[in-house]
Amino acid sequence: MPKISKRGEVMPASPIRKLVPLANAAKERGIKVYHLNIGQPDIPTPEIGLDAVRNLDRKVLEYSPSEGLMSLRRKLRDYYKRFNIDVEVDDIIVTTGGSEAVLFAFMATLDPGDEIIVPEPAYANYMAFAISAGAKIVTVPSTIETGFELPPVEKFEELITPRTKGILICNPNNPTGYLYTQKEMDRLRDIVKKYDLFLYSDEVYREFCYTGAPYISAFHLKGIENQVVLIDSVSKRYSECGIRVGALITKHEELKKNVIKFCQARLSPPLLGQIVAEASIDAPADYMLMTYNEYVERRKFLIDGLNRIPGVYSPIPMGAFYTVVSLPVEDADDFCQWCLREFSYEGETVFMAPASGFYTTPGLGRNEVRMAYVLEKDDLARALVVLEQALKTYNARK
Amino acid sequence: MPKISKRGEVMPASPIRKLVPLANAAKERGIKVYHLNIGQPDIPTPEIGLDAVRNLDRKVLEYSPSEGLMSLRRKLRDYYKRFNIDVEVDDIIVTTGGSEAVLFAFMATLDPGDEIIVPEPAYANYMAFAISAGAKIVTVPSTIETGFELPPVEKFEELITPRTKGILICNPNNPTGYLYTQKEMDRLRDIVKKYDLFLYSDEVYREFCYTGAPYISAFHLKGIENQVVLIDSVSKRYSECGIRVGALITKHEELKKNVIKFCQARLSPPLLGQIVAEASIDAPADYMLMTYNEYVERRKFLIDGLNRIPGVYSPIPMGAFYTVVSLPVEDADDFCQWCLREFSYEGETVFMAPASGFYTTPGLGRNEVRMAYVLEKDDLARALVVLEQALKTYNARK
Repeated sequence: MPKISKRGEVMPASPIRKLVPLANAAKERGIKVYHLNIGQPDIPTPEIGLDAVRNLDRKVLEYSPSEGLMSLRRKLRDYYKRFNIDVEVDDIIVTTGGSEAVLFAFMATLDPGDEIIVPEPAYANYMAFAISAGAKIVTVPSTIETGFELPPVEKFEELITPRTKGILICNPNNPTGYLYTQKEMDRLRDIVKKYDLFLYSDEVYREFCYTGAPYISAFHLKGIENQVVLIDSVSKRYSECGIRVGALITKHEELKKNVIKFCQARLSPPLLGQIVAEASIDAPADYMLMTYNEYVERRKFLIDGLNRIPGVYSPIPMGAFYTVVSLPVEDADDFCQWCLREFSYEGETVFMAPASGFYTTPGLGRNEVRMAYVLEKDDLARALVVLEQALKTYNARK
Repeated sequence: MPKISKRGEVMPASPIRKLVPLANAAKERGIKVYHLNIGQPDIPTPEIGLDAVRNLDRKVLEYSPSEGLMSLRRKLRDYYKRFNIDVEVDDIIVTTGGSEAVLFAFMATLDPGDEIIVPEPAYANYMAFAISAGAKIVTVPSTIETGFELPPVEKFEELITPRTKGILICNPNNPTGYLYTQKEMDRLRDIVKKYDLFLYSDEVYREFCYTGAPYISAFHLKGIENQVVLIDSVSKRYSECGIRVGALITKHEELKKNVIKFCQARLSPPLLGQIVAEASIDAPADYMLMTYNEYVERRKFLIDGLNRIPGVYSPIPMGAFYTVVSLPVEDADDFCQWCLREFSYEGETVFMAPASGFYTTPGLGRNEVRMAYVLEKDDLARALVVLEQALKTYNARK
C-alpha cells in the first residue's frame, strides 16, 4: 500500500478534537457536557444575514470571482474604515474563512525551511498551515504570570535567522484574550522594519475589546504598510463560523498578485457565504451592541467565578472570548480527559481545551486550559460549579 | 520590502484568466462575447437545492464537522451506490469544492520532490496544487490524432522514478471530453498495482457520458481499492459551482486519518453549500435528464458545426462538456487574444481557452483550444458563425 506523506505524518491532530470522542461517549452515557472548548458562539447570526439567503433570487449558484464578490469587498473596505484601517478594495482578497487567508499568506510568502516567529500560547492551526507550506514556526513564550503580555523585543531578536520571514500575532488574542498595547505594537513595528519582515496580524476578534484600551491594528503602524498581512474573518463577529468567509488584506503589490494566483487555483470562495457576509455587515447597531454586552457580562461572570475557585487563576482577558486559566493540577491534559471519561457531578461535566496544544515549547502550559465563554450565563454558572467539584474530586483521588 | 515565496513566483497564472481583462475590454466596447472558455454551466441549479437555503430554519450558522455533515456523507454514499461505487460513510470526506480535495490529496500523500504522472492535456489547476505541495507533475502526452486516448503503458513506465507516488486521471476528461475504456482502466490498475502507486481519479463529470460506453470508476477496479483517491464535486452535476462542495474518497485508513487532520486545520467546509448539495442529490430524475439531454444536443450541435468549418477538427468527446479543437492557425494563444482584442463580427466575438495552458510539454497543443459547451444552442450557433469568420479574417491578415 502506498505511504502517506511525511508532511501528513507530522501534521498535528487537533488537541481539542482528540477529546471529542470522549465527550460524545459521555453524552451517550446521558451526561450533560458544557462546551467551553471551542470558539463556536451560541449568539444568533444577524437576521439580515439569514434573510439574504432566505430571499435568494438567483437561478444558478455560479462561481464568484476568485478574489471575492466586488460588492462584498467594497463593504469590507467601508467596514475597515470604521476602525481607521485605510485600505482599498484592491487590497482586500476574500478567502474561504480566515483559515484560508492564513494558508495563502504562508504559501505566498514562505518557502520550505523559512521561519516565522509567533508568541505562544498561540492558535494551534497556525502550526498546521505552516506545515502545509513546509515552513517552521518558532515560538517566543509569553506567560500567565505577566498576563500574556508581549515578550521583550530581545526575545524576538534572539530567534531571528537568515530564514526568518515574519512575525505573526493574533490581536485580540486567541487563546489568551490579550490585547496588545500601543507600546507593544510599536515595538513590533520597529523590529519588523529593522529586519524587513512580514507582520501577519490575525485580527478577527477586533469587535471584542472590553477594557476601554484601544484596539491597534497592524495597519495603524506607520512605515510598515507594505509589510502587513492582515487576516480577517466574519465568523466570530456575526456568529456565522459555518459560512467560511474571511479575507487577506495587503498593500504589498507583488504579494497581492501572488495570493490571487492561489485564489484562482481554487476557483472561488463560497458564494452563499459571501452573500450572508455582505448582508451581515449591515447588521443593526443594536445587534452588535447586544453581542458585545453579552460577552462583557459573560467575561466578568466567568473570570470572577474562576478566580474564586481555590487554586484556580485567570488573568482578566481584554478581548476575544477566551481565557487561559491555570488549574491546581499537574497535568491539565489528564484532567480534561478525566472530566470527560470518568467524572460527572449531578449528571454534568465540562469540556475544556488543554493549553498544552497552544504551546510548542515542551512543558509549557501543562497546568493550563483554554476556556471559551461562548455559553450563556446560566450555563457558565453551572460549568463553574461542576469545575470546582471536578477539581476537588480529581485531587482527592490519590 | 520583504519578498514573496519562490513557490508564489513559479505558481502559474491561469492561462484563461489572463484573457479576462481583454474580454472585459471588448464588452466595454459594446461587443457581445460568447464564453466558451470556462466550465460555468448556464443550466439552472435544481429548485430543491435552492429551496433548501430559502427555507433555512437555523438561528446560528455554525461550523459543520470538519469531515462534513453526516447527513450529506450518507446521501453521497447512497448516490455513489447508483454507480456501483461501493464506499462507506467513513471513506467520504467532504471538502471545499473538488479543488480542496485535490489539494488535500496532494498534501497528505506527496512530499516536496515527489512526483505524479498525469496524461496531458490536463486541468491546469492540478499543477497549481502540486506546486502548493512542493511536488512535481510529470506529463505523458496524449494527442488529438488518437482522440486523446490513454497513452501506452510503456510511456508511463518510462517516467516512473523512486519519487513517483501516483498517477492522476480525470475521467470523463477535462479538457478533452475523453472517457477511459475498461481496457485503459485495467492498464492503469496494473501499473498502479505493479509500482504500488496512488491512483488519483477526478470523476466530477461522471453524470455526463454520452456514447453508451460505460463509465468506469477507479473504484470499480479490483485489487487496488486502498490505492484509489477519488476526487468528486457537486459543482457540475447540479450546476452549483459557487457553493464549493466536493469530496475526497479513500479506503486507505492512514490516508483518511491524515486528510482529516488537514480538514480540522481549516475547521469546516461551507455549511450553506452542504445544505444545498444534500438537497440537490434528491433533484428529480427529470432535472438530471433535462440537463443530460441539453448537453447531448449541444455536443452534437457544436462538434458537427466545428468539423464543418474548413481546417477545424474536433474529436467527438464522449463525456464532460468540453472538447479540444485544432484550428487552422499556428498559434492559438495569439488567435484567442486577437479574437478578444481586435476582432468582431456583427458586433460579436468568441472567448476560447488556448489549449497550451493544459499542456506542460513545450510546443504541444499550440494550434488547439478548449471549448466548453455551456451555452444554449442558439448561442453556440452564433459562436460557430463568429469563429468561422474570425478564422477567415485572421488568416487573411498577412
